[in-house]
Amino acid sequence: MARILVALGGNALQRAGGTGTWAETVVQMRATAPSLAAIVVAGHELVVTHGNGPQVGALLRQNELAAREVPPRPMDVLGAETEGQIGYLVQQELARALTLAKVPRVVLSIVSRIVVSARDPAFRRPVKPVGRYYTETESRVLRKQHGWKMQFDGGRGGWRRVVPSPRPVEWLEGEIVRRMFDAGWGSRCVPVVAGGGGIPVVARGRGTYEGVEAVVDKDLTAAVVGEALSVDTLAIVTDVPAVAVGFHKPWERWLGEVTPDQLGQFRRQGEFAEGSMGPKVDACLAFLAAGGRRVVITDIPSLGRALRSEAGTRVVRR
Amino acid sequence: MARILVALGGNALQRAGGTGTWAETVVQMRATAPSLAAIVVAGHELVVTHGNGPQVGALLRQNELAAREVPPRPMDVLGAETEGQIGYLVQQELARALTLAKVPRVVLSIVSRIVVSARDPAFRRPVKPVGRYYTETESRVLRKQHGWKMQFDGGRGGWRRVVPSPRPVEWLEGEIVRRMFDAGWGSRCVPVVAGGGGIPVVARGRGTYEGVEAVVDKDLTAAVVGEALSVDTLAIVTDVPAVAVGFHKPWERWLGEVTPDQLGQFRRQGEFAEGSMGPKVDACLAFLAAGGRRVVITDIPSLGRALRSEAGTRVVRR
Repeated sequence: MARILVALGGNALQRAGGTGTWAETVVQMRATAPSLAAIVVAGHELVVTHGNGPQVGALLRQNELAAREVPPRPMDVLGAETEGQIGYLVQQELARALTLAKVPRVVLSIVSRIVVSARDPAFRRPVKPVGRYYTETESRVLRKQHGWKMQFDGGRGGWRRVVPSPRPVEWLEGEIVRRMFDAGWGSRCVPVVAGGGGIPVVARGRGTYEGVEAVVDKDLTAAVVGEALSVDTLAIVTDVPAVAVGFHKPWERWLGEVTPDQLGQFRRQGEFAEGSMGPKVDACLAFLAAGGRRVVITDIPSLGRALRSEAGTRVVRR
Repeated sequence: MARILVALGGNALQRAGGTGTWAETVVQMRATAPSLAAIVVAGHELVVTHGNGPQVGALLRQNELAAREVPPRPMDVLGAETEGQIGYLVQQELARALTLAKVPRVVLSIVSRIVVSARDPAFRRPVKPVGRYYTETESRVLRKQHGWKMQFDGGRGGWRRVVPSPRPVEWLEGEIVRRMFDAGWGSRCVPVVAGGGGIPVVARGRGTYEGVEAVVDKDLTAAVVGEALSVDTLAIVTDVPAVAVGFHKPWERWLGEVTPDQLGQFRRQGEFAEGSMGPKVDACLAFLAAGGRRVVITDIPSLGRALRSEAGTRVVRR
């Protein structure tokens, strides 16, 4: 029996190239859920976290389009809304899959705040693009009106708002969920926590926290959650079956079992793309450096075999 | 030491007649929070639930205004989003007030589903108005396009969508929160649960549930939550200091301590307005009939005194 944290990527929740309707989202999560239920069937304790990229993008866009009638809400609040939205989705579909697999559990979605440092250098250099593409004229207006930082994206030929992506430091609800596990509740419920990387807050002294307009990388947050709950395995679920070196090059090679040292060396050699596999590898190394035992990086179809060391990339401390 | 469930009305969260900005919402909740913290200072266990009327209205309106670009989400999903949004708000401000009052607690916001019966007569007769006002022509189009039920509101001279308001039957996450209290966690954390009356779902057999487009009265849900957690006192916080008979009439009389029988008699005599004090009184009677000991109905300024039986309306079983 192990304790396993699964970090679901956006595509486990929303179909790439889909129309983004809710019905479609439900179908996608319904297809994902049995792979998670299988972990419980195998006798493990399960914790789930998830991304929110497309979902928070949709809320941002709705806020923009309706701004003349409904005052837009800050990004930390929209992040909280996606925790409710996706928490409910996972709850419904995972509880269903667990019941069908004859291992019923209460799936408990918990609104989660993540402390980031007000002195994180990311606040001086916002790099994470959010929301829609703008023309150069629009972009200039938004800089002036809202003080947004804008960045040109050559690929799509448009300007986008960029926000800071500070490192997660502490998960405020972690201690109480940790106590739930210590009290043996892992056999009774599956917590869904720290969705979308958690709601970013900074400490303002005297135990009070203030929300900030930023996004926290959901895999780095998963490493913090994994450490807080002393999970044995962190499973980062993405849209490729494993990590590759020389990705899309003639010498492409898929990694099976590797050590953190080997993976770290590849990372330093520039093998993994920023904004894609790079942060996942960083999250993996952070989790192992903090005492974690094993990380698997894989996709939903390979998840079960990856956890049995038969597929995916497994990063294991020796 | 008692266990007290406070059901916050919309005006504890959003200022009436305000502009509805997030900054304003934070100010309002910051003003509300010390009255809740005082309950913990007095040595009681605290649970919080809340409404979501204005908030879900704003999300509905954004969904409408942005519908050409972003597919609108169903009402159960918007309800889940408000649980994230308001759960985060209460968490931030109540945790702050508790820390300032030197009784720090983890404020734990839990996404909550409420089972309603698919055979509830409310589904055949939707009466709860949601969202904006429409012209008669728009109203006809919406009936046809989305199958919405529309109702004319003479007061504002417009048409509004009406949705069913079925009775809450069971709170799905209740058992696990109950166990938290049984394990003594009431001295460590304050749960925020079943916001907006909970996300309405109907059972579809084999332990699976399907979301429905409906709204559940938050005070009736509070009665279900209060029963599930065996709270001693249910405090319904609204915008008047107490319940009145002959409200706004020359013989107006504010009720102090009354029995459920007395209150039920006034209810049958048509004393309390539907859509206003009526459902609060129903919630109160439901909670006491299910074994609850005491309900107080009051506003935020009087809450502390009402709990000490010095203000507000107290309904007590004898």
